[in-house]
Amino acid sequence: MDKETIEILKQVQAGKLSAEEAAQKLSQMEELDFATLDYSRQKRTGFPEVIYAEGKTPEQVLSIFTKLRKRHDRVLATRVKKEQAEQVLSHFPDTEYHETARTLFWHKKEADNPVPGYVAVVCAGTSDLPVAEEAAVTAEAMGVSVRKIYDVGVAGIHRLFARLDIIREADAIIVVAGMEGALASVIGGLVSKPVIAVPTSVGYGSHLNGIAPLLTMLNSCASGVTVVNIDNGYGAGHFAALILQNKYDHR
Amino acid sequence: MDKETIEILKQVQAGKLSAEEAAQKLSQMEELDFATLDYSRQKRTGFPEVIYAEGKTPEQVLSIFTKLRKRHDRVLATRVKKEQAEQVLSHFPDTEYHETARTLFWHKKEADNPVPGYVAVVCAGTSDLPVAEEAAVTAEAMGVSVRKIYDVGVAGIHRLFARLDIIREADAIIVVAGMEGALASVIGGLVSKPVIAVPTSVGYGSHLNGIAPLLTMLNSCASGVTVVNIDNGYGAGHFAALILQNKYDHR
Amino acid sequence: MDKETIEILKQVQAGKLSAEEAAQKLSQMEELDFATLDYSRQKRTGFPEVIYAEGKTPEQVLSIFTKLRKRHDRVLATRVKKEQAEQVLSHFPDTEYHETARTLFWHKKEADNPVPGYVAVVCAGTSDLPVAEEAAVTAEAMGVSVRKIYDVGVAGIHRLFARLDIIREADAIIVVAGMEGALASVIGGLVSKPVIAVPTSVGYGSHLNGIAPLLTMLNSCASGVTVVNIDNGYGAGHFAALILQNKYDHR
Amino acid sequence: MDKETIEILKQVQAGKLSAEEAAQKLSQMEELDFATLDYSRQKRTGFPEVIYAEGKTPEQVLSIFTKLRKRHDRVLATRVKKEQAEQVLSHFPDTEYHETARTLFWHKKEADNPVPGYVAVVCAGTSDLPVAEEAAVTAEAMGVSVRKIYDVGVAGIHRLFARLDIIREADAIIVVAGMEGALASVIGGLVSKPVIAVPTSVGYGSHLNGIAPLLTMLNSCASGVTVVNIDNGYGAGHFAALILQNKYDHR
Amino acid sequence: MDKETIEILKQVQAGKLSAEEAAQKLSQMEELDFATLDYSRQKRTGFPEVIYAEGKTPEQVLSIFTKLRKRHDRVLATRVKKEQAEQVLSHFPDTEYHETARTLFWHKKEADNPVPGYVAVVCAGTSDLPVAEEAAVTAEAMGVSVRKIYDVGVAGIHRLFARLDIIREADAIIVVAGMEGALASVIGGLVSKPVIAVPTSVGYGSHLNGIAPLLTMLNSCASGVTVVNIDNGYGAGHFAALILQNKYDHR
Amino acid sequence: MDKETIEILKQVQAGKLSAEEAAQKLSQMEELDFATLDYSRQKRTGFPEVIYAEGKTPEQVLSIFTKLRKRHDRVLATRVKKEQAEQVLSHFPDTEYHETARTLFWHKKEADNPVPGYVAVVCAGTSDLPVAEEAAVTAEAMGVSVRKIYDVGVAGIHRLFARLDIIREADAIIVVAGMEGALASVIGGLVSKPVIAVPTSVGYGSHLNGIAPLLTMLNSCASGVTVVNIDNGYGAGHFAALILQNKYDHR
Amino acid sequence: MDKETIEILKQVQAGKLSAEEAAQKLSQMEELDFATLDYSRQKRTGFPEVIYAEGKTPEQVLSIFTKLRKRHDRVLATRVKKEQAEQVLSHFPDTEYHETARTLFWHKKEADNPVPGYVAVVCAGTSDLPVAEEAAVTAEAMGVSVRKIYDVGVAGIHRLFARLDIIREADAIIVVAGMEGALASVIGGLVSKPVIAVPTSVGYGSHLNGIAPLLTMLNSCASGVTVVNIDNGYGAGHFAALILQNKYDHR
Amino acid sequence: MDKETIEILKQVQAGKLSAEEAAQKLSQMEELDFATLDYSRQKRTGFPEVIYAEGKTPEQVLSIFTKLRKRHDRVLATRVKKEQAEQVLSHFPDTEYHETARTLFWHKKEADNPVPGYVAVVCAGTSDLPVAEEAAVTAEAMGVSVRKIYDVGVAGIHRLFARLDIIREADAIIVVAGMEGALASVIGGLVSKPVIAVPTSVGYGSHLNGIAPLLTMLNSCASGVTVVNIDNGYGAGHFAALILQNKYDHR
Repeated sequence: MDKETIEILKQVQAGKLSAEEAAQKLSQMEELDFATLDYSRQKRTGFPEVIYAEGKTPEQVLSIFTKLRKRHDRVLATRVKKEQAEQVLSHFPDTEYHETARTLFWHKKEADNPVPGYVAVVCAGTSDLPVAEEAAVTAEAMGVSVRKIYDVGVAGIHRLFARLDIIREADAIIVVAGMEGALASVIGGLVSKPVIAVPTSVGYGSHLNGIAPLLTMLNSCASGVTVVNIDNGYGAGHFAALILQNKYDHR
Repeated sequence: MDKETIEILKQVQAGKLSAEEAAQKLSQMEELDFATLDYSRQKRTGFPEVIYAEGKTPEQVLSIFTKLRKRHDRVLATRVKKEQAEQVLSHFPDTEYHETARTLFWHKKEADNPVPGYVAVVCAGTSDLPVAEEAAVTAEAMGVSVRKIYDVGVAGIHRLFARLDIIREADAIIVVAGMEGALASVIGGLVSKPVIAVPTSVGYGSHLNGIAPLLTMLNSCASGVTVVNIDNGYGAGHFAALILQNKYDHR
Repeated sequence: MDKETIEILKQVQAGKLSAEEAAQKLSQMEELDFATLDYSRQKRTGFPEVIYAEGKTPEQVLSIFTKLRKRHDRVLATRVKKEQAEQVLSHFPDTEYHETARTLFWHKKEADNPVPGYVAVVCAGTSDLPVAEEAAVTAEAMGVSVRKIYDVGVAGIHRLFARLDIIREADAIIVVAGMEGALASVIGGLVSKPVIAVPTSVGYGSHLNGIAPLLTMLNSCASGVTVVNIDNGYGAGHFAALILQNKYDHR
Repeated sequence: MDKETIEILKQVQAGKLSAEEAAQKLSQMEELDFATLDYSRQKRTGFPEVIYAEGKTPEQVLSIFTKLRKRHDRVLATRVKKEQAEQVLSHFPDTEYHETARTLFWHKKEADNPVPGYVAVVCAGTSDLPVAEEAAVTAEAMGVSVRKIYDVGVAGIHRLFARLDIIREADAIIVVAGMEGALASVIGGLVSKPVIAVPTSVGYGSHLNGIAPLLTMLNSCASGVTVVNIDNGYGAGHFAALILQNKYDHR
Repeated sequence: MDKETIEILKQVQAGKLSAEEAAQKLSQMEELDFATLDYSRQKRTGFPEVIYAEGKTPEQVLSIFTKLRKRHDRVLATRVKKEQAEQVLSHFPDTEYHETARTLFWHKKEADNPVPGYVAVVCAGTSDLPVAEEAAVTAEAMGVSVRKIYDVGVAGIHRLFARLDIIREADAIIVVAGMEGALASVIGGLVSKPVIAVPTSVGYGSHLNGIAPLLTMLNSCASGVTVVNIDNGYGAGHFAALILQNKYDHR
Repeated sequence: MDKETIEILKQVQAGKLSAEEAAQKLSQMEELDFATLDYSRQKRTGFPEVIYAEGKTPEQVLSIFTKLRKRHDRVLATRVKKEQAEQVLSHFPDTEYHETARTLFWHKKEADNPVPGYVAVVCAGTSDLPVAEEAAVTAEAMGVSVRKIYDVGVAGIHRLFARLDIIREADAIIVVAGMEGALASVIGGLVSKPVIAVPTSVGYGSHLNGIAPLLTMLNSCASGVTVVNIDNGYGAGHFAALILQNKYDHR
Repeated sequence: MDKETIEILKQVQAGKLSAEEAAQKLSQMEELDFATLDYSRQKRTGFPEVIYAEGKTPEQVLSIFTKLRKRHDRVLATRVKKEQAEQVLSHFPDTEYHETARTLFWHKKEADNPVPGYVAVVCAGTSDLPVAEEAAVTAEAMGVSVRKIYDVGVAGIHRLFARLDIIREADAIIVVAGMEGALASVIGGLVSKPVIAVPTSVGYGSHLNGIAPLLTMLNSCASGVTVVNIDNGYGAGHFAALILQNKYDHR
Repeated sequence: MDKETIEILKQVQAGKLSAEEAAQKLSQMEELDFATLDYSRQKRTGFPEVIYAEGKTPEQVLSIFTKLRKRHDRVLATRVKKEQAEQVLSHFPDTEYHETARTLFWHKKEADNPVPGYVAVVCAGTSDLPVAEEAAVTAEAMGVSVRKIYDVGVAGIHRLFARLDIIREADAIIVVAGMEGALASVIGGLVSKPVIAVPTSVGYGSHLNGIAPLLTMLNSCASGVTVVNIDNGYGAGHFAALILQNKYDHR
């Protein structure tokens, strides 16, 4: 039983509140408790709520964006098409639109107190960029630094080795790969940091829109690899940022 | 806020309880609240908890059975193998073992006040019997009467027509079918009662252990058909019994 | 053998009908018998026939709509696109077009004698709205009241708890959910009423256009949950309404 | 060894051909032998070659159509879009375009000597019409009569019974059904004629574009049912016509 | 309305039957009508009912076998294991057990009046033999002659060509093939007779227990090919025999 | 270029090493470099190599176990059957065999300097225990504390709420669930810590041996959830331990 | 350790290089080593890098094309749409655009020293042409001759036999087939050369966009057949050219 | 037209053969031609026919083995279980049984003239050994040398680099890998030789008995990789040996 409840009960004990008044307060508090729970979580993670713009009209995106801006000091939207972005930008020019990542991000300009360390976002080919960038933007939106190591696919593995140090020293590693998705296993075998693998839908034929690399990553022979849904850059970025926020107790 | 809470608060107000004591009481009550919730649900449905015997040792089945017998006035176990049943029966000879249904059922001998109406359990072929019987036993264990219309598969549809009346007058209809599972659609087109379809794993080749009739039933062209998992006779029996219990307000 | 048949035979016996005349009458009656069967079912369910507008031209929809209006006192069309709706509305302005539900509904204005009780339609996210609304409109078209509990997805489970009472007191509960579809299991574990789960095609990647929540729902660990096809709001609404019509013997 | 070969060899024996000349002749003949084989088959079946128009330009369809017209006395094209049809019709106005079946058919106007008997083409719903009509046109193009029994889906099974005689007396029965495809099993259980089942891609969700009825039909509990590919009306029509042509030795 | 009905009605007209008696008679007749329907079908096809022995005890197989022997002049059981066969043979030594085909067959010794023509049963490899033999035994049990062309797989296609004549002259052709199942397409392209393709579960890895050849056969580029379920030799044999029985009007 | 290389080169420069000797040294070093890389990683993670006992003979397990014991101060084997365990235990009685987790674990008895914080291992049902325990043992083998919250499935969600605090305060949360796997989403929506979801193969029918909860978890509507392969308790335990080791810089 | 390294080390020994300079040189060399590795591979295969144009803007294709032209003496782009091609051709008119193959190819006009032998590219139907041509162009771009044997599908197998010699004498055989893909098995059984099978996405229904022929080819009963991804003409052409380049040591 | 035919024709021309005799001879020759074709192929490849022992009795394996020994100078059997091997070895002690590869191989002891060059067989883990060894034994049985590079999985990629030279200098490379199968892509990116990838069924959960690495390999981002069926070591060995036999014209 938390302090606030005891406080209310003490007021009843002290005759400052009637039983009925206390009952109502507790009831509100309980209801609040849930909201609070959610609210406090948002506060802790610095990430109140994300707008998934897919299938929404530009007007709808703008409307939700406006509402969230009022309540929070940072707002992120993902899967944002150009015309959706333009609608928001015409109202809030201080919003950043990232065309490759398909994200809109706004935050209060006050000095951030950034999380130390960084997330490495590694990707195999240029066609994986939108997903990789979505992961990067998401992590950054949660106050976490990102280093990008792009175009280091398994077909030319020396490119990966040339950049291994920066990968190894990250606090968490996001590996984005389409095609057969082998990159996650290769990196998983070379590092001792948590690797979050993101299969992408880039491929054709038996690729099955991402099922092939998804299975590859789930069956990785390297330990320390977990997987998110196909193309879910947002999910990987969020998860990686959680690791850093919790590591540096920075929420 | 419920009465009990207000009562406690009034005792605090009256000085009969200290704030700390009240806090502890409320905390216990909250915990209880959840248990109560669950308990009351069991009371209402007359169906406290079901033992899924698959993969358990005979000793484990006996142990759980014993525990539930103490707390409830009816106990059901499904997917019970012979040796599991024997273990239970040797301790509780008043338990009924239904070999085809693979169920064990025990209930207090006091006069039941049975739910009016009945569930029709219809099945296509003799190999669907275990699933059909599991559905029937489950419904009966919940106090609901069952009429069985077996071996009325679509390949000889006149057998179905001959027994249509008894199907049409049921309060809920369970249709169990393997092979292609067409029976659910045919019945669904002939009645105005809720039809619960159960695909079975009886078949071979492209039957895919029940996926074929599962898809058939999900895509039924007849309205008024819902579906449970492959071989889930228990689930269908439980759902049908819920309909009758709620209909006759008999919980 | 029904009365009408005996009547005819008596007329033959009485010499009022020749054998040939009686044969023809019986033959017509038999044919009628089938039609009657169907007709009487429509009468009972209050739901004569539903137009599935998908893939039909606006003219075709109008034509079927017109025909059904003549024969029945209520007509429902589902999956209606805007231009199909406009075609019908321009001829029958007293028809209700529900844009989100994508339904057209018309019924005679005479006083309805509504079915008591209500169906709770619960849904997880705003993108599940079209399916939830289709379920709601369908149930209402069958004379059943609906209460809507929307946007109570599992990601913020307190929102669900806040509205649990209204769900628990329904006669039947429809749960519409895309993404992973966990909501059906959560609700199934909290109520003692029949839960009809509707997976939606809202999701991406390994969601496989609704296969993911479909499997979730079929494998629900909570008893008392059955499932209809992906996006089949109509089917769920129809089934739920059947439960109420049968419960209150209101057909 | 056929006569022609012996003839050539006799000419060699008779000194009318040199060994080298004979060798060349035999070689040509061998090559011809294959063509002949194919040609004779076309002659026998009355069905020389079919143009699958899907993915071809109107010009390509016209070009192949023109070529085949010169060599054969009947030409069939399937999956013909309107603009493809118009291109052909503007050059050969005596060609029949069947819009629902999406076929173009031309044959010499000389008196046909039609195959006796008939194929019954049965279908469940109006949305299965294009496939059913493709089957019908194909069979007719092969000189076989067709009787159509449409809209007799399982959801209103009395409609099927009303027309059972005409189905039973056919020489072969084609059953076209989407949704769950149960119709094939029901008919298979009522007749003693070969039933060719055609699943259609009409459905949604777990229908998987025809996989659901395909599995239904492959797992039919009724004997005497075989299956062709999803939407393959042409294949079913061809197969059924083969049965009749062979039955009446009419090639 | 059939003659028998009119007869009854005339008896009523003539005062020989009361209306009530007639009603009862008609009612019985109607019931009979369905049975008759089924019975006459059995009589026509010469194939009353088949015992699917899979999953039955030897005693159950014997019991059903005994019952069917009494009512019919031929009895077939498929998927019969050795111990099931021995049980039946010990009681009915005049039954034929075909170990490879896994069938039991018994028929009255009176002179058969065999159907003319024959079915060609073609198979690719020796591991397809059980399915091919099941098809052959089934067709023979229905009074149809069978010629077997075995081990003519596509990997050594000359073996097929050497036996093409006997295949081409059959009235119907059953092609049984596991692995990739290409044989059905090759034969389909060389003949003008109905080809019934049976995929077998013989293979490994991506063969998926028969799904690979099933898809191959459903997608055959050759016309005139239909498909039955994986390993369904019985189904193919039955269907092929239907073609011959109908062709030679021999039922 | 690292210090050691420069050192060697300086020795060459100083004439202390010939070019050939240096070349050999550098070559060895390079080879070593790879080994070192791996070795240092093992040292850092405290987790040198894991024996996957599945499909190995007891002798093979013993042999590898013996080898690893010599080189490392902790050895873990997973998926260990009883007879494999007995073989190892008869030689190394100081090894711990965990029967439910199916693991063998040995480590040097010297005082451990445990990682602060803890991993919460949450599971839905008792049948998920082997996987949950494998996760727990793995994390512990890596020096990380574990708190177990078992049997808190979604069907009785109050049990979960009662233990939410201990879950929320963990550094990483492993959620193990079979059936429909909804638990991961529910917990993901209630915490701000990284959640690693493990689907288990516990279920039947459309569960597809774990595919159902795998898809559920990949499509979780809650952020902050990643997934490992079906039944991969080891992978989840390893990943979670990595997070703690990195957080507390404890390698 | 290679010569170059020893040379550097000798220079250090000789005092011509300081340790630091040598370290830097070795470091560069190492980095170069990877690049060289890749570069030398390109040189050997005559195939530096391929542009996969799918999803790129015409400008992006042009930009990469321009860059590669500068560094290599041959450049290939695949999956090139018309407008992408036009963009490149307007800048580099000496580039060859192959519309059916959807390829752009440019190479220096100097006399090629072509690889002896040839690759046979065999395909079943005209709709497989784009994939077959992609394979042919790729092989030719690698300096290998190609002979095309098109339209020899299994449905008219004599066409294949007429051209068997040219297939048998190839150094490697590419078989491109959609529909059921049986051609690969038939050819595999007739030749003693490596057969590379390419399934195409040409088909419908249970073809599953190429999964059907993919499975067919993977399960080929003929030895000597390997498979590439659906529609992967480029991969097959590359692989076949590798065989010839290695055979004739022509790199 | 081949020489032998011309010879026969010349004999006719010379009056040494009658037309009829020549016809018979040509006919026999034609039949022989097919056999010869096959026979000559066997001769060329040095690989007459392979016994797939799976599902055969020890007696059947012995019987086929005996027959093939008489006709050929080498005999190979794959998927041989111990008791099958013992049966053969007891009769032909000069046969080699390879327990891991599950093969039996016998060849005449005369001096072999081995094919130059070698095949590299690379595998990821010890559980892939049976498949790798099957590939190796098959290639060796075809007269080709094999070098084995085992246990070089992606999780410890340095082990692969240490052995890269021997892989790069092979004439063909077989890569055997279970789990996620990433090894094929990594090697494919490092060599300019044909890589034949063999997925194995070693894995669990979403591995789907080899489907995961099969998809991985089909979608390899590296060029020059083709794939055979899951666990098909024989197929890979045969294909690789074909490349070497053709390269060195050694048949």
